[in-house]
Amino acid sequence: MVIMEEEIKRQLQNGVMEQNSRVIFEADEDAYDGMNVHIKESMDSNHFVAMLRASISQWTKQGNRGVWMKLPIEHANLVNAAVRYEGFWYHHAEPTYLMLYWIPQTPNTIPANASHRVGIGALVINDNGEVLVVQEKNGAFRGTGVWKLPTGVVDEGEDICDAAVREVREEAGIKAEFVELLAFRQSHKSFFGKSDLFFVCMLKPLSYKIQKQDSEIEGAQWMPMEEYAAQPFVKNHEMFNKIAEICLAKKDNKYSGFSKVLMTSGFSAKRSYLYFNRKQFTLPEN
Amino acid sequence: MVIMEEEIKRQLQNGVMEQNSRVIFEADEDAYDGMNVHIKESMDSNHFVAMLRASISQWTKQGNRGVWMKLPIEHANLVNAAVRYEGFWYHHAEPTYLMLYWIPQTPNTIPANASHRVGIGALVINDNGEVLVVQEKNGAFRGTGVWKLPTGVVDEGEDICDAAVREVREEAGIKAEFVELLAFRQSHKSFFGKSDLFFVCMLKPLSYKIQKQDSEIEGAQWMPMEEYAAQPFVKNHEMFNKIAEICLAKKDNKYSGFSKVLMTSGFSAKRSYLYFNRKQFTLPEN
Repeated sequence: MVIMEEEIKRQLQNGVMEQNSRVIFEADEDAYDGMNVHIKESMDSNHFVAMLRASISQWTKQGNRGVWMKLPIEHANLVNAAVRYEGFWYHHAEPTYLMLYWIPQTPNTIPANASHRVGIGALVINDNGEVLVVQEKNGAFRGTGVWKLPTGVVDEGEDICDAAVREVREEAGIKAEFVELLAFRQSHKSFFGKSDLFFVCMLKPLSYKIQKQDSEIEGAQWMPMEEYAAQPFVKNHEMFNKIAEICLAKKDNKYSGFSKVLMTSGFSAKRSYLYFNRKQFTLPEN
Repeated sequence: MVIMEEEIKRQLQNGVMEQNSRVIFEADEDAYDGMNVHIKESMDSNHFVAMLRASISQWTKQGNRGVWMKLPIEHANLVNAAVRYEGFWYHHAEPTYLMLYWIPQTPNTIPANASHRVGIGALVINDNGEVLVVQEKNGAFRGTGVWKLPTGVVDEGEDICDAAVREVREEAGIKAEFVELLAFRQSHKSFFGKSDLFFVCMLKPLSYKIQKQDSEIEGAQWMPMEEYAAQPFVKNHEMFNKIAEICLAKKDNKYSGFSKVLMTSGFSAKRSYLYFNRKQFTLPEN
């Protein structure tokens, strides 16, 4: 490693690399005057640094204000060179790639990385007023004996309403459909320091026979809503207690949350869900 | 680079590195039987690979199911070795560090990275029924002449309600306070392929004299709500149009969104906001 770095440094000082490099990277310009590069081919660090330096020099001359570089994990050998010799910073990463950015000495207006994890809790109530509850094998609730609402993480690209339906099916084998979003909580510094949004969704069960998932779930059952709400872990925590209150009110039709409506979203003509209080909204109109 | 890799490979084959390495990394165990390592000291790749290999070997023997490794950007020289020789994957990154993980040949149950960016749109209505609107200098709305609600990104660690207040103050110099969350939209594949949550917040202005921010905002003004809603960009898009409808209904007190209530959140005793329909909830109780 030391040998390589000194060799690069020597070549850079001698101006050799700039002369060897006649090409710059292909890049797309974005709406913020940034250039976007996606490294798709293997190369050695020397060649990479030379091309990158020539590219940035040209882009800066033509008025660009920064560079985004997507570096697949198979080209991990180039990370150190980008950071060390060209002053790139990490922006975000997924299992198979690292996104880096470079900006000149101007105020940093780089848009933030994804900042939130999103989770759901599912309130599934059957016709007997019983709620679907589970005990988890891992995590904070491991070994506590607590019966809780099925919860889970909303995957990237997954709708909140679909995640609630999926978790209920995965954890307890119950088919259900989304009814309403009852409440949500935002918290901070949870997972790797990220913020967290947790949405409580009410679902209507379409099947009733429980088949629990064995690897993560210790137990699953239908439990009277009042019994769930009376557990000390619910009673003694302001947040859980309030959510239970909301669920009890919903069970008695005394609460109105947000419905989901699929609609076209602005410029992109993408279809996405808008969640809002449909009942409240239309009632006064009639 | 090639030289270094062949040297490491040769040493590994000869078993030299294992013999040289008598210590393993310090690590903390988490609730999911994973080990958490934070690399805080500079080292060369050879030493690093040897220690990492010895560490994983011992942790695996004692029943651990995976490794998280936080690698500060100043140790970028170790990224390639972790990926190439020990089979680590990227998990996420922030400007100054990269988080990698390693799992044995078992089903991948690694918790997901932060998946969502969170944004706000602010509906600020004054006593004349006028709404605060802005024109942006950059981004998708650049040069369109569209007057839009002030919008912005919720920072990691920032409350949604606070972000709305901050953006209104930054973009237009208006002081305001959070009243209610009216609706939200979830969309996908927006920024770097991440998902996106956009919350429409109603604010009450506490000052009225506009002082626009010059670097990002082309113009800012108070505009009759009906005039905002009548713009073609609003009228012609189902989503914007529905949001404008909700805003108009709210202006006439015909809509009930989610209030925020600060409360203690479960185990951790952290304080966080729960957003729910307070009005609906309490009315039937009286």
